Amino acid sequence: MHHGFLYVIPAMGLLALIFMLFKINWVSRQSSGNEKMTEIAKHIAEGAMAFLKTEYKTLAYFVIIAAILLGYMGYANPHSSWTIALAFIVGAVLSAFAGFNGMRIATKANVRTAEAARTSLARALRVSFTGGSVMGLGVTGLAVLGLGALLIIVLHTFGVLDARTGDLQKALEVLTGFSLGAESIALFARVGGGIYTKAADVGADLVGKVEAGIPEDDPRNPATIADNVGDNVGDVAGMGADLFGSFVSTIIGTVVLGGEISKNPDTQDAYGGLSPVLLPMVIAGVGTLFSVLSTYVVRIKENGDVQKALNRGNWLAILLTAIASYFITIHMLPAQLTLRGHVFTSTGVFSSIVVGLIVGTLMSMITEYYTSMGRRPVFRIVKQSSTGHATNIIGGLSVGMESTALPIIVLASGIYGSYALAGLYGVAIAASGMMATTAMQLSIDAFGPIADNAGGIAEMSELPKEVRARTDILDAVGNTTAATGKGFAIASAALTSLALFAAFVGIAMPNPADQHIDIYQAKVLAGLFVGAMIPFLFSSLAIAAVGRAAMSMVQEVRRQFREIPGIMEGKGKPQYDRCVAISTNASIKEMLLPGSLAIIVPLIVGFAFGPEVLGGFLAGVTVCGVLMGIFQSNAGGAWDNAKKSFEKGVDIDGITHYKGSEPHKSSVTGDTVGDPFKDTSGPSMNILIKLTSIVSLVIAPTLANLYSQPAASAPAAALQPNRHQEQTWQNIGQKNAQTNTYSLTDSDWNH
Amino acid sequence: MHHGFLYVIPAMGLLALIFMLFKINWVSRQSSGNEKMTEIAKHIAEGAMAFLKTEYKTLAYFVIIAAILLGYMGYANPHSSWTIALAFIVGAVLSAFAGFNGMRIATKANVRTAEAARTSLARALRVSFTGGSVMGLGVTGLAVLGLGALLIIVLHTFGVLDARTGDLQKALEVLTGFSLGAESIALFARVGGGIYTKAADVGADLVGKVEAGIPEDDPRNPATIADNVGDNVGDVAGMGADLFGSFVSTIIGTVVLGGEISKNPDTQDAYGGLSPVLLPMVIAGVGTLFSVLSTYVVRIKENGDVQKALNRGNWLAILLTAIASYFITIHMLPAQLTLRGHVFTSTGVFSSIVVGLIVGTLMSMITEYYTSMGRRPVFRIVKQSSTGHATNIIGGLSVGMESTALPIIVLASGIYGSYALAGLYGVAIAASGMMATTAMQLSIDAFGPIADNAGGIAEMSELPKEVRARTDILDAVGNTTAATGKGFAIASAALTSLALFAAFVGIAMPNPADQHIDIYQAKVLAGLFVGAMIPFLFSSLAIAAVGRAAMSMVQEVRRQFREIPGIMEGKGKPQYDRCVAISTNASIKEMLLPGSLAIIVPLIVGFAFGPEVLGGFLAGVTVCGVLMGIFQSNAGGAWDNAKKSFEKGVDIDGITHYKGSEPHKSSVTGDTVGDPFKDTSGPSMNILIKLTSIVSLVIAPTLANLYSQPAASAPAAALQPNRHQEQTWQNIGQKNAQTNTYSLTDSDWNH
Repeated sequence: MHHGFLYVIPAMGLLALIFMLFKINWVSRQSSGNEKMTEIAKHIAEGAMAFLKTEYKTLAYFVIIAAILLGYMGYANPHSSWTIALAFIVGAVLSAFAGFNGMRIATKANVRTAEAARTSLARALRVSFTGGSVMGLGVTGLAVLGLGALLIIVLHTFGVLDARTGDLQKALEVLTGFSLGAESIALFARVGGGIYTKAADVGADLVGKVEAGIPEDDPRNPATIADNVGDNVGDVAGMGADLFGSFVSTIIGTVVLGGEISKNPDTQDAYGGLSPVLLPMVIAGVGTLFSVLSTYVVRIKENGDVQKALNRGNWLAILLTAIASYFITIHMLPAQLTLRGHVFTSTGVFSSIVVGLIVGTLMSMITEYYTSMGRRPVFRIVKQSSTGHATNIIGGLSVGMESTALPIIVLASGIYGSYALAGLYGVAIAASGMMATTAMQLSIDAFGPIADNAGGIAEMSELPKEVRARTDILDAVGNTTAATGKGFAIASAALTSLALFAAFVGIAMPNPADQHIDIYQAKVLAGLFVGAMIPFLFSSLAIAAVGRAAMSMVQEVRRQFREIPGIMEGKGKPQYDRCVAISTNASIKEMLLPGSLAIIVPLIVGFAFGPEVLGGFLAGVTVCGVLMGIFQSNAGGAWDNAKKSFEKGVDIDGITHYKGSEPHKSSVTGDTVGDPFKDTSGPSMNILIKLTSIVSLVIAPTLANLYSQPAASAPAAALQPNRHQEQTWQNIGQKNAQTNTYSLTDSDWNH
Repeated sequence: MHHGFLYVIPAMGLLALIFMLFKINWVSRQSSGNEKMTEIAKHIAEGAMAFLKTEYKTLAYFVIIAAILLGYMGYANPHSSWTIALAFIVGAVLSAFAGFNGMRIATKANVRTAEAARTSLARALRVSFTGGSVMGLGVTGLAVLGLGALLIIVLHTFGVLDARTGDLQKALEVLTGFSLGAESIALFARVGGGIYTKAADVGADLVGKVEAGIPEDDPRNPATIADNVGDNVGDVAGMGADLFGSFVSTIIGTVVLGGEISKNPDTQDAYGGLSPVLLPMVIAGVGTLFSVLSTYVVRIKENGDVQKALNRGNWLAILLTAIASYFITIHMLPAQLTLRGHVFTSTGVFSSIVVGLIVGTLMSMITEYYTSMGRRPVFRIVKQSSTGHATNIIGGLSVGMESTALPIIVLASGIYGSYALAGLYGVAIAASGMMATTAMQLSIDAFGPIADNAGGIAEMSELPKEVRARTDILDAVGNTTAATGKGFAIASAALTSLALFAAFVGIAMPNPADQHIDIYQAKVLAGLFVGAMIPFLFSSLAIAAVGRAAMSMVQEVRRQFREIPGIMEGKGKPQYDRCVAISTNASIKEMLLPGSLAIIVPLIVGFAFGPEVLGGFLAGVTVCGVLMGIFQSNAGGAWDNAKKSFEKGVDIDGITHYKGSEPHKSSVTGDTVGDPFKDTSGPSMNILIKLTSIVSLVIAPTLANLYSQPAASAPAAALQPNRHQEQTWQNIGQKNAQTNTYSLTDSDWNH
């Protein structure tokens, strides 16, 4: 099968990157404004780079140690290979680079957007959105190129000429290392960036806005540069690494399940039986290219509707990808496929992709409903702000909890539907379909913080009021897209985790009779309990970290206001760098514990209690992670827009309340509580659930070796005497096939 | 086997009730103080009774309709009987009566405690604790009497002379109706009472304390009577019905599993093989009597340590019950037992009881750590109060989330351990052991709100300061016992649910090869997702209801302050009854939706998707319900005590802050947010998870009829071809045994 088609995948990634270079070039050529603007932008860019440098240095140790352990584990296991460590490193480096690349352009685009906003809204949108699309194309282009190239290498290395020659399972197992690398970096980047940005934001707001009564982004506030750096390291670099991980994991989950279908001798196609493996990558590549195309329709006439322009681009990308997916799926896949006894058709696979697109769209719409100004939920919070801080908080918590109901019903229906259409492969491909237009989604997401930053620079450089007014329009749209983007991200994370979960079961329990995660067994149920607790603990650690870091920030800002003479009159110069340093150090230190938790606990559970308990654990993390993610993100978004409602002026029982009123002050409390919810712990849930699944998938072959013997599962299996007996007989054959544990033939990388 | 021993169980219940009557008599004989006190107490008692009357009238409709449906379902199913409707009614009526009884004595004891506090702390403790123990003995006495009597009746009715004659399964199935009745009332009472008490509390605090600046329980505050009524209907009547339900459900879950052991011909004992059925009831009865005994050591010398006296009583009851359990278990049970292929010993059963006691104790200790003044978590919130409302909230949410970690690990270990010791029966009996001393636990719990009320009466009647000081000592201890009681309640609810879950699997999936809840199946996983969402939705509804009701209360109180001339000078008389009416109507109206949710959703899931999906759903509700329960209760408790720390004066970074300081005001916000958390939605989680399990258990025979056929489970089972085939063969026999669906022989109640 090693014909040219395989090379189409990385070529698509490369093409996206070439487009990206053009866009970088275009942004760089725009004017960066007057001297003051350039200087402020330089401060922000330097602060952001300083953070990334410190962060990546810390993570380098982690990557090296993890790679060594991973390499040894791969080496010791006949179903894996030491080369998984190399895939891991590539994944980690590309993920870090994707974040770095997005942030570098964002810190260029911000000041250029501010400058463009001096003349027109349309230009400002064009600059900020082009900046965002560099991020989008960088992330997906690198992912498609990296995955595609790695696939070629592993297929060659393990002698996979078609699905029936060489060791396809081992080749795909090595690929999972790529995704582990990507998601590990993503977790730390998301959590670290999230802590950074919210510590700075909360700190700047509490002392600046609340205590000193100066406006947001006022240059007299020592934390203001840190706050703007935070937008870049959290909302841009963190999100870039996050979505790089999601994109890659989704594809790999589908690829591993596809590999199982491919090994089935009935799977006959023009790609040596490998079409189920190639399909998700091809769709990802095609979706990326259609996203490139669609970025060109995101234009407005002066004073046009920004949200509409973004929606136009988004829908175009989705529609084109859906149509193309139909032809690709029908063309590539055989008419009938079989996975673990489930028989389905290529039309079923395409329908699952559509289910995925519908789930993603509905999730975004529900999120928008719960977090938009003028809708019932946000207005409920607005109304409850009129009786004080406490009722505002109660209102927001209640809205956040309620907002889990519809998404979960949509998600459960999506799981049920896509499974009915095309089995577990259907669930996985639904996630892949949903993620195919990540480039477009991310462009829309990343434009928000760029516009936010532009507004900050306009304020700090004391540009005319209409400039800030224009960036504020963009920023408001950015808030909505940030919320809907989160709804989309959590839906895709949930489906991805299920794909990874299914892939895990296939590898950790190679015997079909063993393939069950039975929560009726006490030990599996105990695993479920512990798993479900992890998102609570993780959120707690993340929120507490923001609280601690924000308190240091508050104390530093108070100190500067007290000690620097003339600071409030604009004569004394605030020490911005002190605040940047506080955020940087705090976030690096604080990200380690929650980050490690996500990686180490599944290892402990898996090795101590075996794959079935780990399966229960994974289900617990996934289910509770999705719920906590939706709850926290939506509560945070709703609080934010409740506060914004007062800034615009809002009518409660016939009285209009504005900024500065008592209800507005209460709403600021909710917004501040919501900050770590929606930007630190909430979005981290996605990565937490994917990362625990991937860690499990990576150790699956080792667990299979350790636990796929009748003795180990005896006490629990005693509950089902019939099934157990059956296992025993089949496992004896299985065990014989797995004896040579320390095989040296694994290391023939230069095959 | 129908020898006299069976009559020992209800006799123990009766004995406890006789002791209760003595205690009621003693309390009634105490002086109720001066005229003003008596009048205020009358207001409170009348308000409380008015609420219960309205509530029970509403619930009567529900009970009648549910009984008819239940009766029909039982009639239509060969494995059940229409008489389950009668058991249901008895359960509902006894549960309502238990709440009513506890509340009546509490509204007598409150004013008598205030009067006793005029002379001595020791006397005040004695009166309030005796009042509490009436509640404790009433609840458990009625439960043991009711269950014991009903057991005798059903065994006679269905011809069960020993475990091998008559229809034991049907007899026990009828018993589950008792528990359904009890838990249904419990849910509505807990939610309705919780909404009532917190609407009044939040309303009274927001306008009285925060806006008007008058102290708590000030007679000028129109909501103050409603607030004190709330303590009675929520913390006394609601909690009484709740724990009546817990106590009964725990026993019944164990009894149903015991029934399975009894049917095994190997089970040979002196009780016709019925010892595994009788054991949990006997232990419950014995635990109740030892609790009676232990109430007599809860005495202090003047100015002695109240907490120590309560602990002494609690430990004595636990210790005596543990020792007695050893002899009872070893004496009653055969040396070796078998349940669903799991073989274990009577010593293992006793050890499981000990595991249950340890789990309960550890859960209480952890809860105490997280919610006590002077410990690290509460101090974290105290410290974060110094930077404002928002950081106080962030601190509390973070502490609440963190506080789930250790309890879940304890719980998971308890499940693992008790299962290893004595299989599923071990898990169930662990819960029973833990619940055996409910009478003592509840006495300790109920004394708190009585003391709280006494303080309110002292304040409103303008008694000398030292009276309030004495009741405050009792109230502070009451806050701690309330928190630890919640930790205990959630642990027992979790274990009980597992027992019910196991019982459900046994009945809904009568074929041993079918007995699994495999979350690897997409549809079961979808069920898990939906189940896990329910606690979020339920909490949201409960919290929002409190918010809405509190807002009406705030507006009414503001109106009275505005419109009644001379009210602030103490000359105008506030219209207390208007506030009582607002709380009553709001809580009755608002309890219906969340309450119905818990009952209707499992019905829909079960009938539409079958028992395995319902099993996934149940696991989701249980796991997430436990987490949300712990999170909300502990966050609320910690916020409360952070606020109390300021009232005592607390040192932050070298500066001592008191009541009225800015950090104190922030801490009041947290306390107000925590109110619905810890007293409405948090404790409702227990009932939610038990009620969904019981509803499932009650419909289990019907589901077995509908779904225990190979065709229905075909699509999912296709995943496990081997197991599926096996099922098919065994189900054919099963199906033949289940054909006569509309059998008339069910209705031979007067056997």
